[in-house]
This record gives sequence, C-alpha cells and structure tokens, in this order.
Amino acid sequence: MTVETDASAALLADLGERLPGLRLLTDPGDRQSYRSDETAHWKAGLPLAVALPTSTDEVAEIMRAATRHRVPVVPRGAGSGLSGGSAGVEGALTVAFTRMNRIVEIDRANLVVVTQPGVINAELKAAVAREGLFYAPDPASYEFCSIGGNIGTNAGGLCCVKYGVTRDAVLALEVVLADGRVIRTGGRSVKDVAGYSLTHLFVGSQGTLCLVTEATLRLRPAPPAKVTMLAFFATLEAAGKAVAAITAAGLTPCTLELMDRVTIAAVDDWHNLGLDREAAGLLLVESDLPAGAAETELAAAITACEGAGATQVVRAESASEADWLRQVRRMAFRAMERLGTARMEDVGVPRSRVPELLTEIERVAAAHDVRCGTFGHAGDGNLHPTFVSTRGDQAEEARVEAACQELYRAALSLGGTVTGEHGIGAARRGLLELQRGEAAVSVMRAIKSALDPLGILNPGKVL
Amino acid sequence: MTVETDASAALLADLGERLPGLRLLTDPGDRQSYRSDETAHWKAGLPLAVALPTSTDEVAEIMRAATRHRVPVVPRGAGSGLSGGSAGVEGALTVAFTRMNRIVEIDRANLVVVTQPGVINAELKAAVAREGLFYAPDPASYEFCSIGGNIGTNAGGLCCVKYGVTRDAVLALEVVLADGRVIRTGGRSVKDVAGYSLTHLFVGSQGTLCLVTEATLRLRPAPPAKVTMLAFFATLEAAGKAVAAITAAGLTPCTLELMDRVTIAAVDDWHNLGLDREAAGLLLVESDLPAGAAETELAAAITACEGAGATQVVRAESASEADWLRQVRRMAFRAMERLGTARMEDVGVPRSRVPELLTEIERVAAAHDVRCGTFGHAGDGNLHPTFVSTRGDQAEEARVEAACQELYRAALSLGGTVTGEHGIGAARRGLLELQRGEAAVSVMRAIKSALDPLGILNPGKVL
Repeated sequence: MTVETDASAALLADLGERLPGLRLLTDPGDRQSYRSDETAHWKAGLPLAVALPTSTDEVAEIMRAATRHRVPVVPRGAGSGLSGGSAGVEGALTVAFTRMNRIVEIDRANLVVVTQPGVINAELKAAVAREGLFYAPDPASYEFCSIGGNIGTNAGGLCCVKYGVTRDAVLALEVVLADGRVIRTGGRSVKDVAGYSLTHLFVGSQGTLCLVTEATLRLRPAPPAKVTMLAFFATLEAAGKAVAAITAAGLTPCTLELMDRVTIAAVDDWHNLGLDREAAGLLLVESDLPAGAAETELAAAITACEGAGATQVVRAESASEADWLRQVRRMAFRAMERLGTARMEDVGVPRSRVPELLTEIERVAAAHDVRCGTFGHAGDGNLHPTFVSTRGDQAEEARVEAACQELYRAALSLGGTVTGEHGIGAARRGLLELQRGEAAVSVMRAIKSALDPLGILNPGKVL
Repeated sequence: MTVETDASAALLADLGERLPGLRLLTDPGDRQSYRSDETAHWKAGLPLAVALPTSTDEVAEIMRAATRHRVPVVPRGAGSGLSGGSAGVEGALTVAFTRMNRIVEIDRANLVVVTQPGVINAELKAAVAREGLFYAPDPASYEFCSIGGNIGTNAGGLCCVKYGVTRDAVLALEVVLADGRVIRTGGRSVKDVAGYSLTHLFVGSQGTLCLVTEATLRLRPAPPAKVTMLAFFATLEAAGKAVAAITAAGLTPCTLELMDRVTIAAVDDWHNLGLDREAAGLLLVESDLPAGAAETELAAAITACEGAGATQVVRAESASEADWLRQVRRMAFRAMERLGTARMEDVGVPRSRVPELLTEIERVAAAHDVRCGTFGHAGDGNLHPTFVSTRGDQAEEARVEAACQELYRAALSLGGTVTGEHGIGAARRGLLELQRGEAAVSVMRAIKSALDPLGILNPGKVL
C-alpha cells in the first residue's frame, strides 16, 4: 500500500485541528524509535507519525480521520512483539497505546478486571494479586509487554498449559472499527451466546480488524504457592518421554517447560549457576493444586521424570529457590541474545510430536550450519528454536532464514503450526496460506474486507 | 425468504441425480417430524425435504446444489435445541446430521477426540471415558443432544463453571461453506495463532456461517470421582450469599447449581424423594480435585453454605448417593414439563447479580400472573426460569410471552444476556440488537454476508 503524500499531510492537519490535545510525534527521531518491534530480523517501515491517544474518543476520531484520508494505521502496544505485528509501515500512522494505561476496575465478586490496553501485563497481575486474585496469561515478556499487545497476538506463556491462552481470559472488548465506530463485544457474564463471538474473533487479529481500547479479563482466585522442580536428562528423547509420561499419568502441572543444552549453557555462562551442562535438556515442572495436592502431583511428576531416565532432579525447598529455578527458564531468550542476533521462532506441534520436532530442529540447524538453542512450552507442544547469528554477517543471516523456512515446513508436516503464540504478523505472512490452505485464507480475507473495506487497519500484517 | 417452487423441484431433482445414494425424505409425514426442535413455543416452518448425508462430500455436494438453486438450508443435529435454531424454515432443505455419527479417532497422547457431528454427547463421553479420558461439556440434555448441535449453540452445561463451555473444548473444525467449499480450521496443536480463529467464530454461529462436518475436541485426563452435596436454604437470598461465599473462599467447584422451591416441589412430586419442600432453594455443589483435596474443598463449601444460613446439608456418602443428588437437578426440566407447556428461558448475569436476577424473576412472574420455576447454573450466573402454562390456554401463553419479554430486559439491565447457552436461534432473534447494539450487529451481518452472500445458510436464525 502506497500512501499519497497529500493524504498524509491532510491527515496530520486534520488531527491537529480536531484533536489539539493529542500527543502526535512527527519528529524523525521519534518516528524512528517507533519503527520496529522486537522482531530484529524484520525490516520495518518508517511511520508517518506516532499518535499517543489517551481515550477511546481520541482513537475513534483518529480512525474517522484515517478513513477520510485513506491513510493506514498501525496499532502498537509496548513494542515487544516477535512477529512484526506492530512494526511500522512506511507512511502509515502508528497509534501507540502507551498512555491508555489505566486499570479501570477490579470486580472481585465477578472475578474480572476491566483495563485499558496500555497496561503492562506484570502491572495488571500485581494489581489483581493485591486483591487475592490471579490473571493467568504470562508471556515470557510479561514484565514489559502490554495487555493490548497480548490480546492482539493472543499471547501464550508459561502457565497456559494449565490455564489457557489470552483468548481464554478475555470476556469482553471495547473496540474501534476502521470507520471510527465504537462497539462493545461480550460482557461480564461468563456464559453468553447472543450472536457471533466477535470477542474471540478479534483476539489474535493483530489490529487488522479493529483497535482494542478496553478489555474485560477473567480472573481466578489466587492459587496456592507453586511447588517447583527441574529435571535434567541425558537426551532430548528422554525429556520428551517424561512429558508424555506426565500427561499419561493424568497430571495437570501449571508449568511444563523445556530447555536444551545450548540454552542451558547460555544461561549458565551468563549467571554462573552451576547447571548441569552435560545434560541434553531440562524440564521445569510446577504444580499449584490446593490443599497439599500439589506435593502429590509434583511427586508423581518426579516419578514420571525418573522413569523416563532423568539424571538429576532439583526440587525447590523454598519460595525463593522456586523463583530461582523459574528464572533459569525466563532468562533463556536474553541469554541467547547475548550471543549475537537472536531470531526466536515459535513453531508448535501436537504435544505427542515434540520429540520429532526437536529432532527436526537439530537436523535443520545442522543442514544450514547455523547455531540454534531451543526452549519453550513442551507441555503444549510450542517450542522456541532460537537461531543466533553474528551481528552483521549477512551470509549467516541468509542461512538462518533458509533454516527457518525449512523449520516451518517441518512443523506443518508434523501437523503443527508456524506460530504458536507470537503471531503471523508481518514476518510470517507468506506462510499463512501454506498452513491454512487457500480456501480458509479466502474466508479470513472476506472477513477482513467486510470489516475494513479500505484496508487501512495494519496493512501487510496477517493476511 | 421465499423460495421459488421451481427452484425447490430443481434442487431435489439435482440432488437425486448427483447423489443417488443420499437419503432424502420428501414424504409429508417425515418432513413434519423434522419441523420443530424442542422449542415448544416456536412455530417452525415445514421443510421442503430432509437430507441425511453420511459424508463431508455429500454435504459439500448438497451446498453446491443449494447455491446453484438458491434454496436455503437448515442444519440439524439431534433436534434438542431450545432456541429454534434447527427449527424448519418453510421451503428450506433441512440437513440432519444423524447419520454422520462416527467417532473418528481418540488420540490419547494428544488428549483429543476427532468426531463427526451426529455423535451424541453422552456416547462421546462414554467412549473417551473407556480410555481414561474426560470430555467436559455436559448440557443437561447430554443423553440425547449431538456434538454438532453443541458446537452450533456453543452449549454449556453443569460442569462449565469449572471446565468452560463447548467453545473452550473445540480445537479444530472441518466445515462446508455456503458455496460447498470445504475448509479446515485450527488443528491438533493446543496453541496456534496462525491467522484469525475461524474455529472460535464458527462455534456458536448456529449454522448461519457454515455446516460443521467434523470436530477435533479437547479432552482431559479423567478427574477423580466427585464428592457431592446438596444444601437447602430458607431464602433464595441466602442461597445467593452462599454462592458468593464459595467464590470469595477461592473455591473452584466443578458443579454449583441452584433449584428454587417450585422446581424442588416439581421434582419431589414426580419421584417422592422426601426433599425439603419448605426450603426456598437448594444448591448442588461438587468437587473433583485430586489427592484428597476434593474433601477439603467440599468441607469449605459446606462452611460457606452454613455461614450463609443453610438449613440442611446432605452430603453424599457414596457414588450412588452422589448420582442420586445429581439426578435431582437433572430432572428439573422434565419435572416442570409434567405440569403443562414448559418454556425454559436462559438468561444470564454477572454472577454477583444472581440474587437480583432471582428477585426479578419472581417479580415478573407475579406481575404477569404466570407460574415459574427456576433452576440453573448459579456458579456462572446462568439461570433457566421455566414458565409453565396450561396446554392450549392461549391467554396464559400470551402472558408467558409478555413475562419473557420483560425478563430479557431485566437481565440486560443487570448487565447480563438474553441467552447464556441455548442461543439466539429463531426464538430470540428480535433481542440481539437490544443486547449487542446496532453497530455490533452490523458487524455480525457484514461477516454473515461475506461468508454467505446468498443468505442460504439457516435464514431467519441469529441475525
């Protein structure tokens, strides 16, 4: 999509006139700083300008103006996305929700929180925790990602193996449509089948169907403190067997995460933790069942791991030790980033096929002569092979790109997905049809055209 | 939508030619028996004919023919719906999925079952239970409703207070579009964010966007046997307080159901169970936590009920006693049906507002001089006030209709919904815009037009 310069100038003039209080960044340096998200390998466009609205009314006015001038709009949360979903589009207006960062209401009796999209996930978690409540979705980036971005990508995280993904936690939305109309979807009732569930459709649509201006999220009573362990394995196959054995035993751990040898070493190099670097992989397993049942569940998980050949099991004896074990996993991506340009992928497979996916990752990395460390959500089949290249080495980057292309196809051939929780965004756009098929994508396109006939909502993303 | 007689004849001739093996009922008696669903007060149209396909290919051929001749199609599961969703449309072809009743695969390792839509909910539950697995959604009609119908309405049930509704259990669908194209949505990976979630959009769309021909459903390890109790209360307000206290205590019972005095009496009259007929209401509470935690949770629920003023608590001492207590609740609707023409409504509110909803139900029934018994899913705010009129008494039926109209508005004024789990269907179609607003419904209509431009999929339903 090319944007007419006249239209751009007219849009900015229009916004200046209609919304004199709107913070609108047009300085080249500011625009540059909103160009990219965390998808390092994606070449983003330079925004025409960056708007920082503070209310739904302002967002609606922005969209009415964008429609009038046919200028595209890119919504942006905290900019921590890993698919280029909020990456700038040349000549488009980026709308950053940073200033819509108010928690509107915590409704204890109904176990919901109403929030603006710019609130950081960790802040929301902390605010509801003070009321004895629990907001489950916890992307690894929870300390700096925003709820709006989580909704845009249908973000996952560590505890969704038990508590579901972001979509499962969204009860209602207020959104601004492409033409500036404001609608509300869903409600505070946990069961509601009146009409199509626009809520579920909009979650994960990465700003291509509407802009989310408020969300009503489902909470739970705060679960008891977790009990936590790490199990080390001599082969990834054994770790995969342990995951299968945990499922077969009917356990429902709230965390079931994997790290491979490369990632273990990267974390250990960084913080000198004395991890077992001989191990091919480790599993982080946690339980949060009430009334002592967590101990029983963790014991059963340990039995499953030992049965699968675990070489060492480290069980946290205190909350601070548990936190420490958890940090080992949370540091994985940052540790890999220290080694060079890190490209984190996000493939998923039916959980029984995790061992095959691990084999494929090793094969692909070797075939293309690239370095790769893998960690991720073994319990729900979603892994993050992370390819590291030397900064500026274009030949190596090209090999990484080729490896990724092969990896996507490997995941699909195992009945999986090219993206488990990061989104198609801009970076994986060429893969959607490969995964979903032409007819299914044509249905998505029909929905997109019906809701955004001018194509001004986050063009070049998802579809 | 009026259907040309020529088009009807041409469609039937076309189907006869292209699908000589298709069971196609054109006899007036057969068509009559597929006219209505269980929505007794809804005046359904007479189907042109009834097709009973046995494969996705046949369904696709039917839709290609329906598109060619522009004849509308009404999908139908077991015909147990309570919103007129599968009620006949005059001159439309009803497609009944009764013969597509095969469980395709139970995949233990991935905790999923793949099934055709005509399988009865209870049969699916039983089949996966034999493998030690659990399919959660359990509409009260589970012994005779079909999975396809459950998906069409996004059916709820008793245990969704803990395990979620049908939509939460659907991982993937195979559907036939209006023009006969077949697409697959979702997959066997539990996390997958590639493109819009058509799966979530299609669930609950009551056959107005596509016909479901196969579903991949999420299973869980079979939970331990439930521990079960009934608590009786002198006022409905006290019962409401008990529900709030259970939530406030952080408990997550797998059943939290309510019955009022009228319903208790109806069940007791029928089976002479010796229930406390002086009580204004009862709660059925169950827990299925593992490793002894269920006992602790039930004890905490009993404390909450006693604190709210329970007059009597009956705790099941065995599995057969638990089953007996559960049957008290499951018999509620049939017991009300014995009293006359029973119209079961399905309003929902944010759970904290259940006491207010109960007051409104009593007020509305008194104001319109109609008999009403209320039971339902107190734990998630979804109640079934059931109005009983003398068979053939049109004046009384009119008063019931007026009471229902007032009740819908009362639920909406409490921030609720006109339908928690039965669907808008045909019977509540006039209420959708009242609940969702004109702009939100226009978005639904835009999606409908994009997917079904000829308007041949279940016309007159939902929108």
